[in-house]
Amino acid sequence: MSDYDLVIRGGTVGTATASFPADVAVKDGRIAAVGLGLPAGAREIDATGKFVLPGGIDTHAHVEQVSANGLMNADTFESATTSAAFGGNTTLIAFAAQHRGLDLRKVVDDYAALGRRGALIDYAFHLIVANPDRKTIETDLPALIREGHASIKVFMTYDLIKVDDEPLLDLLLTARQNRALVCVHAENHGMIAWMGKRLVEKGYSAPKYHAISHPRGSEAEAINRLITAAELLDQPIMVFHVSTAEGAAVIRQARGRGLKVFAETCPQYLFMTKDDLDRPGVEGAKWMCSPPTREVADQTALWQALALGDLQTVTSDHAPYRLDETGKLAAGPNPTFKQIANGMPGLETRLPLLFDALVSRGRPEFEGRGLESFVRLTATAPAAIYNLPGKGALLPGYDADIAIWDPERTVTISDDLMHDRTGFTPFAGTVVRGWPERVLRRGEEIIADGACKAIPGSGRWLGRQGGWAAEPTGRLVADMDPRRNFGAELL
Amino acid sequence: MSDYDLVIRGGTVGTATASFPADVAVKDGRIAAVGLGLPAGAREIDATGKFVLPGGIDTHAHVEQVSANGLMNADTFESATTSAAFGGNTTLIAFAAQHRGLDLRKVVDDYAALGRRGALIDYAFHLIVANPDRKTIETDLPALIREGHASIKVFMTYDLIKVDDEPLLDLLLTARQNRALVCVHAENHGMIAWMGKRLVEKGYSAPKYHAISHPRGSEAEAINRLITAAELLDQPIMVFHVSTAEGAAVIRQARGRGLKVFAETCPQYLFMTKDDLDRPGVEGAKWMCSPPTREVADQTALWQALALGDLQTVTSDHAPYRLDETGKLAAGPNPTFKQIANGMPGLETRLPLLFDALVSRGRPEFEGRGLESFVRLTATAPAAIYNLPGKGALLPGYDADIAIWDPERTVTISDDLMHDRTGFTPFAGTVVRGWPERVLRRGEEIIADGACKAIPGSGRWLGRQGGWAAEPTGRLVADMDPRRNFGAELL
Amino acid sequence: MSDYDLVIRGGTVGTATASFPADVAVKDGRIAAVGLGLPAGAREIDATGKFVLPGGIDTHAHVEQVSANGLMNADTFESATTSAAFGGNTTLIAFAAQHRGLDLRKVVDDYAALGRRGALIDYAFHLIVANPDRKTIETDLPALIREGHASIKVFMTYDLIKVDDEPLLDLLLTARQNRALVCVHAENHGMIAWMGKRLVEKGYSAPKYHAISHPRGSEAEAINRLITAAELLDQPIMVFHVSTAEGAAVIRQARGRGLKVFAETCPQYLFMTKDDLDRPGVEGAKWMCSPPTREVADQTALWQALALGDLQTVTSDHAPYRLDETGKLAAGPNPTFKQIANGMPGLETRLPLLFDALVSRGRPEFEGRGLESFVRLTATAPAAIYNLPGKGALLPGYDADIAIWDPERTVTISDDLMHDRTGFTPFAGTVVRGWPERVLRRGEEIIADGACKAIPGSGRWLGRQGGWAAEPTGRLVADMDPRRNFGAELL
Amino acid sequence: MSDYDLVIRGGTVGTATASFPADVAVKDGRIAAVGLGLPAGAREIDATGKFVLPGGIDTHAHVEQVSANGLMNADTFESATTSAAFGGNTTLIAFAAQHRGLDLRKVVDDYAALGRRGALIDYAFHLIVANPDRKTIETDLPALIREGHASIKVFMTYDLIKVDDEPLLDLLLTARQNRALVCVHAENHGMIAWMGKRLVEKGYSAPKYHAISHPRGSEAEAINRLITAAELLDQPIMVFHVSTAEGAAVIRQARGRGLKVFAETCPQYLFMTKDDLDRPGVEGAKWMCSPPTREVADQTALWQALALGDLQTVTSDHAPYRLDETGKLAAGPNPTFKQIANGMPGLETRLPLLFDALVSRGRPEFEGRGLESFVRLTATAPAAIYNLPGKGALLPGYDADIAIWDPERTVTISDDLMHDRTGFTPFAGTVVRGWPERVLRRGEEIIADGACKAIPGSGRWLGRQGGWAAEPTGRLVADMDPRRNFGAELL
Repeated sequence: MSDYDLVIRGGTVGTATASFPADVAVKDGRIAAVGLGLPAGAREIDATGKFVLPGGIDTHAHVEQVSANGLMNADTFESATTSAAFGGNTTLIAFAAQHRGLDLRKVVDDYAALGRRGALIDYAFHLIVANPDRKTIETDLPALIREGHASIKVFMTYDLIKVDDEPLLDLLLTARQNRALVCVHAENHGMIAWMGKRLVEKGYSAPKYHAISHPRGSEAEAINRLITAAELLDQPIMVFHVSTAEGAAVIRQARGRGLKVFAETCPQYLFMTKDDLDRPGVEGAKWMCSPPTREVADQTALWQALALGDLQTVTSDHAPYRLDETGKLAAGPNPTFKQIANGMPGLETRLPLLFDALVSRGRPEFEGRGLESFVRLTATAPAAIYNLPGKGALLPGYDADIAIWDPERTVTISDDLMHDRTGFTPFAGTVVRGWPERVLRRGEEIIADGACKAIPGSGRWLGRQGGWAAEPTGRLVADMDPRRNFGAELL
Repeated sequence: MSDYDLVIRGGTVGTATASFPADVAVKDGRIAAVGLGLPAGAREIDATGKFVLPGGIDTHAHVEQVSANGLMNADTFESATTSAAFGGNTTLIAFAAQHRGLDLRKVVDDYAALGRRGALIDYAFHLIVANPDRKTIETDLPALIREGHASIKVFMTYDLIKVDDEPLLDLLLTARQNRALVCVHAENHGMIAWMGKRLVEKGYSAPKYHAISHPRGSEAEAINRLITAAELLDQPIMVFHVSTAEGAAVIRQARGRGLKVFAETCPQYLFMTKDDLDRPGVEGAKWMCSPPTREVADQTALWQALALGDLQTVTSDHAPYRLDETGKLAAGPNPTFKQIANGMPGLETRLPLLFDALVSRGRPEFEGRGLESFVRLTATAPAAIYNLPGKGALLPGYDADIAIWDPERTVTISDDLMHDRTGFTPFAGTVVRGWPERVLRRGEEIIADGACKAIPGSGRWLGRQGGWAAEPTGRLVADMDPRRNFGAELL
Repeated sequence: MSDYDLVIRGGTVGTATASFPADVAVKDGRIAAVGLGLPAGAREIDATGKFVLPGGIDTHAHVEQVSANGLMNADTFESATTSAAFGGNTTLIAFAAQHRGLDLRKVVDDYAALGRRGALIDYAFHLIVANPDRKTIETDLPALIREGHASIKVFMTYDLIKVDDEPLLDLLLTARQNRALVCVHAENHGMIAWMGKRLVEKGYSAPKYHAISHPRGSEAEAINRLITAAELLDQPIMVFHVSTAEGAAVIRQARGRGLKVFAETCPQYLFMTKDDLDRPGVEGAKWMCSPPTREVADQTALWQALALGDLQTVTSDHAPYRLDETGKLAAGPNPTFKQIANGMPGLETRLPLLFDALVSRGRPEFEGRGLESFVRLTATAPAAIYNLPGKGALLPGYDADIAIWDPERTVTISDDLMHDRTGFTPFAGTVVRGWPERVLRRGEEIIADGACKAIPGSGRWLGRQGGWAAEPTGRLVADMDPRRNFGAELL
Repeated sequence: MSDYDLVIRGGTVGTATASFPADVAVKDGRIAAVGLGLPAGAREIDATGKFVLPGGIDTHAHVEQVSANGLMNADTFESATTSAAFGGNTTLIAFAAQHRGLDLRKVVDDYAALGRRGALIDYAFHLIVANPDRKTIETDLPALIREGHASIKVFMTYDLIKVDDEPLLDLLLTARQNRALVCVHAENHGMIAWMGKRLVEKGYSAPKYHAISHPRGSEAEAINRLITAAELLDQPIMVFHVSTAEGAAVIRQARGRGLKVFAETCPQYLFMTKDDLDRPGVEGAKWMCSPPTREVADQTALWQALALGDLQTVTSDHAPYRLDETGKLAAGPNPTFKQIANGMPGLETRLPLLFDALVSRGRPEFEGRGLESFVRLTATAPAAIYNLPGKGALLPGYDADIAIWDPERTVTISDDLMHDRTGFTPFAGTVVRGWPERVLRRGEEIIADGACKAIPGSGRWLGRQGGWAAEPTGRLVADMDPRRNFGAELL
């Protein structure tokens, strides 16, 4: 008789490099052993015919967040993490979002309180900096990073929160000095603003024109600009939600030069195109996100980039705006696309969509290693990049964050099925094979029998004190090298 | 007996593709014939042993221009065109420089008056737009372009005059609709501002740090951004004063995609490096220009780019600021490099430096075709790109703008030799072989026997009504193609 | 009264950089003057409304040549040069073709005799080397190059004449040491042999499968291999008949590195696709050439490459095999495509096709400079690359090789119209606007009133003693640099 | 009390993605469990302070192999696998080497007998094909692949064994049809032959000139040619022993296009340069391998390529030729470099050198993930690419092939320390930190206390029946696509 609290028996265990039949034993909320014929635990779960996988880590979600113009999104930490858990996730990174004029320390404290109250899976924050003044950069950020908030988020577009090239350098430098990762929404603001104005002026104001208003070149341009800045300061970056083939190509080229450029994409860019926005009336608003969905050729390029490791993770970019006056229709029932909040829900659908594509259908780019790739993209790589020790893999000593998937269960995604508060899912009607039927967070079953059993607030905040992904290369470009620049030391 | 006014006899005539012994006959200010054994003219010039070349066209010079912060540069149209003529030039494109708040029409009228009064070689204006408001873009520019001002100049950097990405698109579009070329100073403003502040803060304020304050990546970045915008709108552009290998590479790549991207460099980037700025005290200020001079490897890359046609012209970027309180020392005798006006004189040295490098020394990239390349880069290509019919070649019917060069004359460049009012030349001490000994403008000898014989104001303004270089390709990127973007027509 | 033998009056003269109204005076077979209102000549030609252009130079034509397997092509120097002259050409470079076992000196003597007897326009030879033994490489080639045969032709494919990688290096080196250009048919032999066998084995033997039997990758591969060899030895090369976008891209990349790589394409690759081979029975054999014609996208890429200067000339690759038992049907009336001689006639159609595309229709890549580009691609550039002084431009002292074009004459190309002996033209049915109505060779009218007036044998052989295009860069790759390779000197 | 045969307790377990403290339990030669506090086994090994890693897999070694000119290499399967085991390896892929005229089936049978007799670690064979006749390709290879020999090796150079482009396509196709991987020694034969002859002729015959005789471009050229062929037939390939930055760049570019190109390099290319060949007399012969070692900049590029996944494995390319008349001096005591057998031993030093570089010194490219990268490059990736199920990771059900490393043990490599029969190691004198002190093969301790305890012949042959790496993409290039090529089906 062992002293295991729990043994999940008879399933197929998946890691980022292999899958194999094995039992998984849990003790004190952690993985105690992975093996064949493990002794009985105090409790047993029969996983015969099931896949036993690390719980998903979603590193990009907007939760209980107020937009720059005062719009509160639909989810609380409770509803968002419930939805995430139903979708097979056990860890979430949300945002602590500073707006112009706000004190970053206060912002973080406020979001931390929201998380403590509502979160029922483990979580962390990226710090959105929209007010890069001296106090934020020189005082608050260094302290907050030291306290475990080791990632910053910056927008290169959006009127009220965008950070221009000069303060972007300030942020990259403070991140370098304090060992944090800088995550970036990289689109060229001027091009988007210009196109949006012209479209609306000419009467092209339906939601579908949102796609046109973000020229595809605006993404690759901004990524290139960002990389130029990051290379100057030798600072690692994460490019959020890559949507175009050209964007992925710029990243591949930079990585080939040895730069520390990470990147993600999202299911919307892998499964949808701009044509999904083409619906009657305001309906298309549901499919509005930024950057917008693109073309089938972009989907192919993004899958290839994920397979090659040029992009390392797939996140939801969950941004829950209801299709009503509290959300996308805040400006009235017939808004122009410029008046509609960008974003769509995705916490609950991300993993089933990817499982279906990678495991059930076997995207050819992944060479019959779909399960391993699924684990890598959704759990192991995010844990490594964002420095979440004990997360992202089913290894002895790691947190027993486990999703048990039924690979044969076929589900038609529908609005009703979702547990977030957006009221719709853009993937409604999609049929997927493979569904997470049980989810354990630190050994505790939080999803089972179609119900959520976790207590709001039971999720833990995860401090992150810098990590490998945030390490500069130490190679300076000539401009910053004192031996080359008349002795001037700038870093 | 012919009715030729003048025959230049016995020289070697140079064109952009060949050089050959021939006489050149002039009648009514134009070339009447190029031939062997032409009949005698009313006047004869013996050009035995000399090169008979088209007069130089310098398409980038700041003349009688007030800077954004009120600093008047040292040259008048009279002094500048005198200097240019001594340097073998017969045509100049200067600037009509709008500042914030100024009316463009008024600005152009003012500069036109200055030109009419002083210019003694033919001239045109690029219109600097620094106040891209609706009137400028929708009313003044279309009218001015129609009147013959078919090129616009935009700065992507400099605090008081820079044009951001959104108005840049306005300008590119109005240029496209009215068939003008857009010339751009392309450097990333934020990176330069950031570096400059940090350098000065840390006490690195000597002129040599100017070079460091413009990170080399800031050029390629801005060129890439500019090209993205120009490609979106299918508008031809001219990238001014390329200084880095990476900048030239971005241009080469864009041209390979079929984009209409033209580019120039200047002698300072071909013959100097940032080490030239490293002088005691404030002396280095003489070598300060923007972008700054770079490295020997950049020089090599720029020569190669000129040979390949990726860059098409070499201009002076003449910017005459004296090294005294009226110019570079306006902020006092010990300014930081941020307080020193950028720019150096160059109208008079451009052609001798290039002649020496290409013809006398035979840069290897040009394959023994140095003379032809000299003519191409300094006369034929500028005339084509900027649409100056009748200029840039010694062909029947063309203006008899002729420089007669002594290929054997060796000259040591010195401050005293110059005829502009800057008071110094950064090339002082350089020894060149080959010198323009006579210059004819529309058949009239304006430089001979070491003296200038032209009357101020005798230069003609050259109207340019659009032209081949300004033609869009007609190929739209997907975002602008109504067939691809839900029928939206944006151009 | 002048002493001009001839004045061509009132036409539009075209050069590689400009076109302008002017008269052209001829004396002693050379251009005496180009001017306005030139005095009367002994003879006058009224060129009002006509274009007065340099006669075409076709640098790639198989004439009176026996193939490796004994097939004599259909043209003699008389018939070929007659056809060329009707097509607006005044200079031709044909081949002196060595086969395995033949003495190169003897081969050259034999072809020289054929040329002397029949040629009625000026001509030179490329020396085809198919027997690269020591005598050929060390004795005959150096002597022949010194005597004026400054270009070598090598085949990387074709069973009986191909030169493998090792002797290719011998040839490149002897070319470098003796200053000759090396022209290459670059296709991967193994891929073509393999594909051909498999196609025929599987019963795909119709002419159209010829196109499939030359995989498009086989061209870029061979060009890349050739460039690697040429770079090692620092030897200039000319890539013949580029057919694919990928091939052109490899060349562009090499030129960007500063390598001396020249390249041509032919009308068949600019105006035809592989679908032209798809005809009933053996008819498609008329459209068989190697490399085969490709896709519309390749045409676009090749035009772009010509506009950018990555490719510099357009030649005919005239290879006159009749569609009968003396030519393409030598193996019988129903040959497989592997048994059909490759090649098509083109001397007479090359210039009208290009004139129509560039001048009359104005291919957009050439920016309204179609006439100048036509002159550059067909006359000025070939003269420069192959070192033909006095050819390729209408300049004082140059040979009066002139074609007078009627830009308005519309002609439907037909078999009957042709003057070569192939019996067909693959361009039959094509309607072109613009036709060469008079042709002068060294001042003598050889085509006028639809008749050829030149005497066979009146064409002159043109000695070429090396030239700029053949100059090595002097930059050695590391492997050949004695400072880098333990002192070993290999060049 | 468990029924584990063995528990390795208290070490740090390493996988390709993580390392963590854990016990490893073994039962019946397989891993039974990996966990914390596992119950006691029948036997226990204390691994406190040690790293418990998968045994190394060396997929490139020449063992008991006769060269094309009759030279037997120094190792038997017994000596080679003993040396490999001492070096921390538990699996080896050697060669069954066909020469011209030999029957492949017979060759394989012979090598299989040698392996059965001598091997004491598990092993497989790559089939070297040097006689690609119809029987080999159409009969023997399909059968042998079906029987488990799922990888072919081809040489593009070496006089007596090289395979030309046409038979290479035959081999690629038969590999595709039978699902085998094709491994290739890719260098341009002609360039190497040419350089070698010229060097020797000019008296540059010392071993160091071997490096010069393989121009660095010859590698990238051959890789490019190979990829062109493989892409045509949509067949996965493995490029052996990449030595140059340019070679790695060609591979990266192909992978970016989605091609299935795998690649390896070897310690000699990561730790040595061509200067290591520069020794007095014939001593440099010890450092002769092909391709030769290159430059420091190549080392950097290769490390970067390994970190990026462009190269996936590091192998020894063990080729044991003694520095005496049985090996490198077979042609006499003063051979030219062309007469000296290429190759060096490496089975025993590969892992310690890599451990030292990646784990102990922490090559910066690997971001503090040196241990994981070590496991990936030397065990997990080779098992995946060569389809060795149950090998390459310490997972339940996998073979208990384990190396226990002492990360603190410092060893000076010396000739005496080695257990192969070459008589020398080129790494003699190198000091490494980290050494494999115990090695288990399928649970049996074969190396312990500095002795080898395994019985010759106890190694098992590993059948490989195709696998993911050998899967074609299914994407055909246009030339092979029947829809594009007039219906011709060629694959």
